[in-house]
Amino acid sequence: MKSQKQKCDVMNPDCPSRKVLDRISDKWTALVIYALSEGTMRYGELQRRIGGVSQKMLTQTLRSLEDDGLVARKIYPVVPPMVEYSLTPLGRSLTEPLTAVRKWAETHLPQLLANRAKRSPRA
Amino acid sequence: MKSQKQKCDVMNPDCPSRKVLDRISDKWTALVIYALSEGTMRYGELQRRIGGVSQKMLTQTLRSLEDDGLVARKIYPVVPPMVEYSLTPLGRSLTEPLTAVRKWAETHLPQLLANRAKRSPRA
Repeated sequence: MKSQKQKCDVMNPDCPSRKVLDRISDKWTALVIYALSEGTMRYGELQRRIGGVSQKMLTQTLRSLEDDGLVARKIYPVVPPMVEYSLTPLGRSLTEPLTAVRKWAETHLPQLLANRAKRSPRA
Repeated sequence: MKSQKQKCDVMNPDCPSRKVLDRISDKWTALVIYALSEGTMRYGELQRRIGGVSQKMLTQTLRSLEDDGLVARKIYPVVPPMVEYSLTPLGRSLTEPLTAVRKWAETHLPQLLANRAKRSPRA
């Protein structure tokens, strides 16, 4: 791996930032970050907030976010165990750019749908 | 499909903005937008600029971006035909939020790598 002191460039496939871009450019990652930006949540709450996410995908996404240090998992020693998820300060710093992407999607939706409708279906 | 006048919400799995989020929250989409934000490019130039992209993935990503009206494809009637890709005004409007995500990835890379290194490998 190259020195971390080198200039990062996602356009370079060998730069580790390309892998990071891959992980954060992911619909489920974005949706988990959006949900947790509203506050700490338990697993079931997260699953309900992010409609349509499978248990497998949510578990996988949360693990990857924990590995990156974007999400913290707190386990309360009660019976049955209670687990809460929240954004770390690093995770909160990702909220702003990802929210800009979300706003873009929500704002430009009518135009995007109209563009798609204009295109004839491909053979 | 619900009326486009309704408030869009990517957290709602039935809102079409969820599909849009899925398409723009994609590493290859982001990389094509970054590359074309530097200027109009031919297919081969794009492929070289985005290191590591397969022909299949690049073709598929460009088609999806054309369908959304984010990328324009211009064909020059020469032999052999010359095809150029460029961002539309709508595509250019996506550059700002996606560049914020890229900068976040490049800026926080050392911290993310350190966090990953701290985690013990999962069983």
